[in-house]
Amino acid sequence: MSTKLPTDPYKGVRDFYPEDKAVQQYIFDVWQMTAEHFGYQAYDASVLEPAELYKSKTSAEIVNEQTYTFTDRGDREVTLRPEMTPTVARMVAGRRRELSFPVRWYSIPNLFRYERTQRGRLREHWQLNCDLFGVDDPSADIELLLLVNDIFKNFGAEGGVHYAIHIASRRVLEVLYDSLAIDQDTRVAATRLADRKLKMDAAHFETEMTAIAGAATPAILDFLNTTDVTALSDTIKASAAYIELEMVVTTLTELGCAAVFDPTIIRGFDYYTGVVFEVKDLHPDNNRSMLGGGRYDNLTGLFGGDPIPGIGFGMGDVTMRDFLESHNLLTADINAPTLAILPLDLSLNVPAQKIAQTFRNAGIATTVDMSQKKIGKKITSAADHYVDYALILGEDEITSDTYTLKNLVAETEQHGTIEALIAQIQT
Amino acid sequence: MSTKLPTDPYKGVRDFYPEDKAVQQYIFDVWQMTAEHFGYQAYDASVLEPAELYKSKTSAEIVNEQTYTFTDRGDREVTLRPEMTPTVARMVAGRRRELSFPVRWYSIPNLFRYERTQRGRLREHWQLNCDLFGVDDPSADIELLLLVNDIFKNFGAEGGVHYAIHIASRRVLEVLYDSLAIDQDTRVAATRLADRKLKMDAAHFETEMTAIAGAATPAILDFLNTTDVTALSDTIKASAAYIELEMVVTTLTELGCAAVFDPTIIRGFDYYTGVVFEVKDLHPDNNRSMLGGGRYDNLTGLFGGDPIPGIGFGMGDVTMRDFLESHNLLTADINAPTLAILPLDLSLNVPAQKIAQTFRNAGIATTVDMSQKKIGKKITSAADHYVDYALILGEDEITSDTYTLKNLVAETEQHGTIEALIAQIQT
Repeated sequence: MSTKLPTDPYKGVRDFYPEDKAVQQYIFDVWQMTAEHFGYQAYDASVLEPAELYKSKTSAEIVNEQTYTFTDRGDREVTLRPEMTPTVARMVAGRRRELSFPVRWYSIPNLFRYERTQRGRLREHWQLNCDLFGVDDPSADIELLLLVNDIFKNFGAEGGVHYAIHIASRRVLEVLYDSLAIDQDTRVAATRLADRKLKMDAAHFETEMTAIAGAATPAILDFLNTTDVTALSDTIKASAAYIELEMVVTTLTELGCAAVFDPTIIRGFDYYTGVVFEVKDLHPDNNRSMLGGGRYDNLTGLFGGDPIPGIGFGMGDVTMRDFLESHNLLTADINAPTLAILPLDLSLNVPAQKIAQTFRNAGIATTVDMSQKKIGKKITSAADHYVDYALILGEDEITSDTYTLKNLVAETEQHGTIEALIAQIQT
Repeated sequence: MSTKLPTDPYKGVRDFYPEDKAVQQYIFDVWQMTAEHFGYQAYDASVLEPAELYKSKTSAEIVNEQTYTFTDRGDREVTLRPEMTPTVARMVAGRRRELSFPVRWYSIPNLFRYERTQRGRLREHWQLNCDLFGVDDPSADIELLLLVNDIFKNFGAEGGVHYAIHIASRRVLEVLYDSLAIDQDTRVAATRLADRKLKMDAAHFETEMTAIAGAATPAILDFLNTTDVTALSDTIKASAAYIELEMVVTTLTELGCAAVFDPTIIRGFDYYTGVVFEVKDLHPDNNRSMLGGGRYDNLTGLFGGDPIPGIGFGMGDVTMRDFLESHNLLTADINAPTLAILPLDLSLNVPAQKIAQTFRNAGIATTVDMSQKKIGKKITSAADHYVDYALILGEDEITSDTYTLKNLVAETEQHGTIEALIAQIQT
């Protein structure tokens, strides 16, 4: 009791005071509403996962250096999940016989990264994850990207003005490599380098690619610099992979989505196998990817049985909030009760609760200001907290059974019994 | 890739498949709606907290043996929160100057306990936490208990039939000890024993209490056996603590709450100082406490500055679900889209997505069954998933621009253009 505890949260995580929680809740509500509009069902799991879940497919760097992993007293290695995809793959694989495919699931989990660097990056964030399992044709890619586009529309954003959807295909990239007879190790190195293309200057990129791919470099550079999908080489255009990609891009454009072909979209994770995509924030101060996903036809195969085709994406709450703030699209209201009962004296706090309960029973969200503030301050405080009505309670009001209801928005007053004022608020 | 990963979650935590997530979401929605109806605002924090937060006030057993605590790479001791009260006290104390009291906050955090025993107890559960800070009179206790009662009412439960609110007062217990001139160590021991009264037979309890309290035992037993608050001794009834307790019990009864005085309610945590309460499940198979809380006037004092009076409670999702199931009160619906588009052939999957988007744009939640199932199976699957309407899509429908809409609930059919069928669903 003698030592004074600090009030800071743990390093790198956030406290959500009501004004921040209201913004996050608004973001979660739009995510949930849009996902359910497309028939996606909510699922969830614990933040604690067996560490082995991340050791097969996630890059070694992430598991060893960037996760919270510890050993419990039963000698089990446990990880605070750094991403949701291994969890959803585990859950789908676990009920593969019972589930009726196509399976459409969404979740809004919190994810943890152990960030050693001190650039203000957070160690915990929340992420919408949507996944569609069991369909191996471009209609699945189209659906998921329509869902992505509708999320942005439902936040009031405009495609091509505020954001753009960038699409590529890992499968098309493999067709290119096949046509150039590039071996497996070179493919991995070239793909990893391509993933960093936008972060390097062109000359440096070409030098590094030449060191990896040699004579194949011009063809690879030519591919990576193409932004019109129909301008790709005839060899690529003859492939099934191209036909799928082209159908996805064309259909989305036809349906009014701001979707563009962008061969520099790679996505770091090893498990992507087909179409991959990102959403770019078009704000000049904030030019970055804010959503990523793609097709991962083999992920559930890690758990045995035939692979189940899947496609999914994740988008974080921090970049979403930055996006909404940068573009002045944030319209979150803090939740506020409709009515505040304001007793003139502490001795009236209990009678105020009785009257409040009458309003609550009539369906009116009601609070009571039981503080020692003067009545003027109580009225100001109610208005500051976005309360619509205030009812001032003194002995006289109780004796006469006539109360004054102040409309704090319209700045008007009505007088009457509790029943009359309930009717007034309800109209 | 060669080793097959297991699909089980980490030991002692739950996977929430959609049917289970829907039940949990229903519980969360009723909690949230009721708390906001009383003017409580949502807040949140990370599951990761500095370990020191739990070392001052929580019992030593819980911190040392029952929490997930580990050391991060920055040599910080970090704990997965076992309860939310220290977090909310930390957050209130951190902004004590900016906040406008009374502060009403709620949250639905997940909490972790390291359970070594193997009785099927979970290591993670979710809990509604509601707290009211800054009011030091019985109107706060009354408000919080009205909120508790409304939660149960909003689940369709009936007070006195399905549940009962049991109320006591730590302060009244101190008045009893004062009147018997019992020293501090004896008070602690007697209070800890009283907390276990219902788990012991009467004779054994009396023997143990006599060993602790000696000659004061008959008066303590008499107190603990009293269930009518007005039947307490005159010495107790002369105290301010009694007047508060009596006002709480009487007012709640007057407002129709199933509230009873129960002096055996102690609540284990050291930080409670005034009124304490539990809600008992009255189902004979399930007779246990399912919610607990009380007044903790000194909790924020740990962070420096003057103490801020507070009162709060927590209730878990596992006991809530058990309660609803035992009493047949569980009415959760899994979220389902309104319409399923059912293509007759895989080649129609992309056109089906285009049509689906037209319905979605009209505000109708729409899914597409892109699987290889035969059409009869697709219709059955849609009905099994609680979808209201099905639209069967073949080449003929597209050519003639006339589609068949099956109402899967009423088992009727309509025919028409997409626009006509949208209007049909919207009416």
